[in-house]
Amino acid sequence: MRNVNIGIIGFGTVGAGVVECLLRNGALIAERTGILPVIARVADLDITSDRGVVPPAGSLTTDVSEVLDNPEIDVVVELVGGTGVAKQFVLRALANGKPVVTANKALLAGHGAEIFAAADKSTADVYYEASVGGGIPCIKALREGLVANQLQEIVGILNGTCNYILTRMEEELADFGQVLAEAQAAGYAEADPSFDVDGIDTAHKATILASLAYGKWFGMDPFHVEGIRAVTLQDIEYAAELGYRIKLLAIVKETGGAVQMRVHPALIPVRSLLGHVAGVFNAVWVRGDTVGQTMYYGRGAGREATASAVVADIVDVARNLKSDSHWRVPAFRPHNGFRRVVPMGEITTRYYVRLQALDRPGVLALVTGILGEHRISIASVTQKETNQPSVPMVILTHQAAEHEMQAALRRIGELAEIGAPPVCFRIEDLD
Amino acid sequence: MRNVNIGIIGFGTVGAGVVECLLRNGALIAERTGILPVIARVADLDITSDRGVVPPAGSLTTDVSEVLDNPEIDVVVELVGGTGVAKQFVLRALANGKPVVTANKALLAGHGAEIFAAADKSTADVYYEASVGGGIPCIKALREGLVANQLQEIVGILNGTCNYILTRMEEELADFGQVLAEAQAAGYAEADPSFDVDGIDTAHKATILASLAYGKWFGMDPFHVEGIRAVTLQDIEYAAELGYRIKLLAIVKETGGAVQMRVHPALIPVRSLLGHVAGVFNAVWVRGDTVGQTMYYGRGAGREATASAVVADIVDVARNLKSDSHWRVPAFRPHNGFRRVVPMGEITTRYYVRLQALDRPGVLALVTGILGEHRISIASVTQKETNQPSVPMVILTHQAAEHEMQAALRRIGELAEIGAPPVCFRIEDLD
Repeated sequence: MRNVNIGIIGFGTVGAGVVECLLRNGALIAERTGILPVIARVADLDITSDRGVVPPAGSLTTDVSEVLDNPEIDVVVELVGGTGVAKQFVLRALANGKPVVTANKALLAGHGAEIFAAADKSTADVYYEASVGGGIPCIKALREGLVANQLQEIVGILNGTCNYILTRMEEELADFGQVLAEAQAAGYAEADPSFDVDGIDTAHKATILASLAYGKWFGMDPFHVEGIRAVTLQDIEYAAELGYRIKLLAIVKETGGAVQMRVHPALIPVRSLLGHVAGVFNAVWVRGDTVGQTMYYGRGAGREATASAVVADIVDVARNLKSDSHWRVPAFRPHNGFRRVVPMGEITTRYYVRLQALDRPGVLALVTGILGEHRISIASVTQKETNQPSVPMVILTHQAAEHEMQAALRRIGELAEIGAPPVCFRIEDLD
Repeated sequence: MRNVNIGIIGFGTVGAGVVECLLRNGALIAERTGILPVIARVADLDITSDRGVVPPAGSLTTDVSEVLDNPEIDVVVELVGGTGVAKQFVLRALANGKPVVTANKALLAGHGAEIFAAADKSTADVYYEASVGGGIPCIKALREGLVANQLQEIVGILNGTCNYILTRMEEELADFGQVLAEAQAAGYAEADPSFDVDGIDTAHKATILASLAYGKWFGMDPFHVEGIRAVTLQDIEYAAELGYRIKLLAIVKETGGAVQMRVHPALIPVRSLLGHVAGVFNAVWVRGDTVGQTMYYGRGAGREATASAVVADIVDVARNLKSDSHWRVPAFRPHNGFRRVVPMGEITTRYYVRLQALDRPGVLALVTGILGEHRISIASVTQKETNQPSVPMVILTHQAAEHEMQAALRRIGELAEIGAPPVCFRIEDLD
């Protein structure tokens, strides 16, 4: 049996979950792996508040150097979050030759290159399973289980708050604002929800998956990011009538080394497996050239689910320490999967367009005429009956170029016969 | 860069898929991992038939000792299948100190203990991701990604042939026999389909998952196994009306060290994620005490998907060779998760019961009276209208004991008012 001395920095929600998991299942983990996890230090500025779990006597400290500079600590678990002190802690741990486990997607998305360079110098491991998809072992799947594959497409539901809001809107036929307020009251959304609902958190996770898949640490710049504030109940209902659900997706697609990277709401088929990922759950759908379609599903956040991934990483680090095999799976290894990022205007996809058209003869001809001039072919048109002076019109298109669609939407929006700015969402068929 | 010399035994469907994958993606794998996979030998009795892929010059051989006893071979890939020579090859490789990658579930289910004992002696690795769930990295998820969890429940759709047949029956409103014949014609079912449709293949895979979860290599004996021959189109339709689908499930559940192990058709909610796993796809749904519900989905068989898992195992072995860390993840490690197997009669679950009742007053009272005497509480009753002398009656129960249900079914079957043996399927609510 080999002991591994764990130093945790950050005794918040996830930190408490990790302590609880190790106390409950430490003996089982030791039986399974031959490695006994020992909670040696838990560092936080606040060591008095009740977290519902009590770390071993003597482990709590307000002095982070008792973790970072303590020769007895085998692995540093960074659960502070953010990109300020967390970054300093991670770099200091690596400089001291200590392996790091982190759940910090913002840090990796923004500063991954610097951190991996430091890890390279130190030859200490960096593991970050909990940074994407909470408890779902999707990073392990991507870089170990699917290592034999050219990864052609990754489509993820990666933010539980957004998926919860969209699911509730659909189930309760409620507006975005109303559901957001309820979610905030229930603790499923932050007081300032912009990090989640504007797609930033999803993009942080998506860039990690994209980087692992295509061998270049991309950061946030290449990502086109839209959130879910523009999704209305009306669109959710119309989409449902047409056999679709609206989800906030992270989409990473590769063709011949050209990679699309985008985060936006999209219609996906109700019949698709990803379409059944509801509430706070996350899922990562992956298409590889050899394995075909696969999917990984589970809780994307929360004290316990995240702890499951953090402890799995601790065990991976400990297995490496035990067998002296650090860098067995490198924290990040550049490779040649990547040639260029496809600019957003160049992508082609299918579209859902909703217009508020004045109920006059010839409007449909005007609209479809503009679409035709932009080489956008129409798959279906639904005009809703109403007793209002303007009628909702829903158009689904075949594959079309994004720049053509944006140009067409501008022209359609300027028509006197169109009563409000056109609403447009992309469609992902997942086939 | 480290070369790993691969010796493949068995150049059949999966063997050809592995060769094809390595030829196509070997350079990418090398970039990702620092390990260059080299196809050194491919042994088969038939080295002349066209497999649609050509191994490197000089690698094909009819002499298995060129793989097993060749000092240049770093890893032996056993793709012969079955429990005859395959077992001898695996044991000989291990005796020679060579790590083994195998996709052979029948071998592991039947002879796992012997093989792991040999591996223990040799300290060579044995990896077998492809033995369960084809290309889905579910074994890696179970013993690495979810290592922090007490695994409370594993429910799997593990046989693509059965899932294809049940999906087609539902979609085409066709009988079992008709769909089976079509599946055989299309190559989705064997000429002798009993291995698949009687649940044996599912049980082979289920016992591997159960063993990893609960730390004892169980073999086949503890499993209760029923296949899908008894599933009729009528039951599929009635189940659908009640909001359920019928799937062949592998069910492994633990409570306080007591483990249920069973393979049988069951009703699962249409709304569940597992309910949407259609056609030849497989999925493993896992509930852990820390992670909560997770699911892993993909193709469960076939040349390419299986090759994806085999090559991932080859890379894992090669990483261990490179960093001299064999047994980093032991082939199998007993632990104390297990206390006893729950005999089938002791399980409790919900039930779907279909009766063919003569259309006379008092029949329902007789049937429900018997159920009541066996402490079986009724959740719903549906009596179908018909112009036949006997009417179908469908009863869903609350939780009840299996031995009580079996006793009640015997008594109901003996009633003069019941025209055919009662049909009964279990219900899994997956909550």
